[in-house]
Amino acid sequence: MNRRPLLLTQGDPSGIGPELTLKAWLQRERASLPPFAVVADPDHLGRVATALGWNVPIQVAQPSQVHAIFSRALPVLPLSAAVSARAGQPDPASAPSVIESIETAVRLVRAGEASAVVTNPIAKHVLYEAGFRHPGHTEFLAALASDGGSESWHPVMMLWSEQLAVVPVTVHIPLSDVPSALTTDLIVTTGRIVARELRERFGIAAPRLALAGLNPHAGESGSMGTEDMRVIAPAVEILRQDGIDAAGPLPADTMFHARARSRYDAALAMYHDQALIPIKTIAFDEAVNVTLGLPFVRTSPDHGTAFDIAGKGIARPDSLIAAIRLAARLGAP
Amino acid sequence: MNRRPLLLTQGDPSGIGPELTLKAWLQRERASLPPFAVVADPDHLGRVATALGWNVPIQVAQPSQVHAIFSRALPVLPLSAAVSARAGQPDPASAPSVIESIETAVRLVRAGEASAVVTNPIAKHVLYEAGFRHPGHTEFLAALASDGGSESWHPVMMLWSEQLAVVPVTVHIPLSDVPSALTTDLIVTTGRIVARELRERFGIAAPRLALAGLNPHAGESGSMGTEDMRVIAPAVEILRQDGIDAAGPLPADTMFHARARSRYDAALAMYHDQALIPIKTIAFDEAVNVTLGLPFVRTSPDHGTAFDIAGKGIARPDSLIAAIRLAARLGAP
Repeated sequence: MNRRPLLLTQGDPSGIGPELTLKAWLQRERASLPPFAVVADPDHLGRVATALGWNVPIQVAQPSQVHAIFSRALPVLPLSAAVSARAGQPDPASAPSVIESIETAVRLVRAGEASAVVTNPIAKHVLYEAGFRHPGHTEFLAALASDGGSESWHPVMMLWSEQLAVVPVTVHIPLSDVPSALTTDLIVTTGRIVARELRERFGIAAPRLALAGLNPHAGESGSMGTEDMRVIAPAVEILRQDGIDAAGPLPADTMFHARARSRYDAALAMYHDQALIPIKTIAFDEAVNVTLGLPFVRTSPDHGTAFDIAGKGIARPDSLIAAIRLAARLGAP
Repeated sequence: MNRRPLLLTQGDPSGIGPELTLKAWLQRERASLPPFAVVADPDHLGRVATALGWNVPIQVAQPSQVHAIFSRALPVLPLSAAVSARAGQPDPASAPSVIESIETAVRLVRAGEASAVVTNPIAKHVLYEAGFRHPGHTEFLAALASDGGSESWHPVMMLWSEQLAVVPVTVHIPLSDVPSALTTDLIVTTGRIVARELRERFGIAAPRLALAGLNPHAGESGSMGTEDMRVIAPAVEILRQDGIDAAGPLPADTMFHARARSRYDAALAMYHDQALIPIKTIAFDEAVNVTLGLPFVRTSPDHGTAFDIAGKGIARPDSLIAAIRLAARLGAP
């Protein structure tokens, strides 16, 4: 077992993050969860537990104390100020606590005091109103990893489940921008990071990558779009020259059924829905977001803040629990 | 039980169509298949059976005799000329037989002598070499349905399985052409045909349609592409004004898991892979292609000629069997 604990960030305190964190702790034995702490306001968490009628003892802790505490109380690494957020009511006043929680978790994992970071969901628009300037959660983590230094990181989003791991090469852009955003360089850079982390963190000695085509039937020899031949096939060739077991471009529609999935360890998809449709179709509740390409392990549940159901106690903790489990598997010992 | 038989077309005689037809007949009792005949060269089918060592009595028949024959022999409606094709060796010399088989099946179903048509796979490039001028199988069927008259048909491809039915609004075009090919009119026309056939042929009194967005998260209020708001949302509105239960544009990645699928009878996807990824992920062997918008029922297995494995007897008949079953359910009584 890791002796260093996992750290959960608070996420948006008006979303479902706090109650999911409490639920995950309540299910720690049934789900065989490794010790974790959350970087949050202990009083706010206590109020969330009380409002839901859940018996969750909360104990302020240092990272080194988490193992001793975890079986009997939820260990909390406190923030510098109180959080007054109310469930379902996003409030820019919460933004400093959201940011401090992430910064603290990254600092501790970088300092070797924690094994990995599991981030609860945030709401970008709430942070933007408070002056947050990063494009998203993952980019903020990459900036913190650089810490003002010259090292720069190329974060890569993987959606992972027991049945399927997918990486969208392009992510949050309009579909019409995908063909021009997709370059051989971007595919090769992404493929190298995926192959390296599958080896180093997932412990797969010779990772097998499957690259999807962009067009129907992977372009059918150029008769339905040329990107598959012009952009993707050369990337597959370069990855192979690197010694990486890469196949493709493959027709995307026949890549994701059970027999096809057995032929690779991770699929590289060319755009958001090509990656997320198959994994959310077969593993909607259990899929985990894991960020590759950072100098530490970061996972997160594959859902948002869900303000509409926050505070009701009905949100499912499956994805957060899967994120905690995967972080424990991948994190620093 | 339908008294009119189903008609299978021969498909490309060098592909897996002939052996799948034989396999389907051999499994007629176990799979509870309704009586069907195939429009083909009986001697060619006999040679395929002999080469595989399968005991399939073959009997030349008229449509009206199929019911009486089916339990003891595979009924064949003969073609006008012999077929000399060899498995795995596509040959333009087969093209006239491929075309005659389709023409005969359509003529008989239009004349009320058959209940529906199940087409075995063809290879367009083989037909093109022989002078075939239609863009594809389905367009050829639509042309035959018009029969030189003024009526024109708008065929719509649906992929159907017990778990999920999907309709790609645009189909075999490059992904970069999808945003411009997608119009409100096209979506509305497609949605109306789907709703009508779900009512009239599938017997669903008030069909529920779910329309996918084009962009990630259905464009997230226009921040990731504007087509969802500009093109798809107005189509949903028009369909609703028609009295059709239509929802969307929905984020495509969260539309296809089991709970989400229970909320609609058919999903309209905006492009090929958005429709085919989810259905081939969950129902790879059983998905059936059904053509809506024609004046008769046509189904087909959701795979190609598979010349690489033709003649080996290893191709799975699951999709052809599912296509026969669905044709029996939807066809004229």
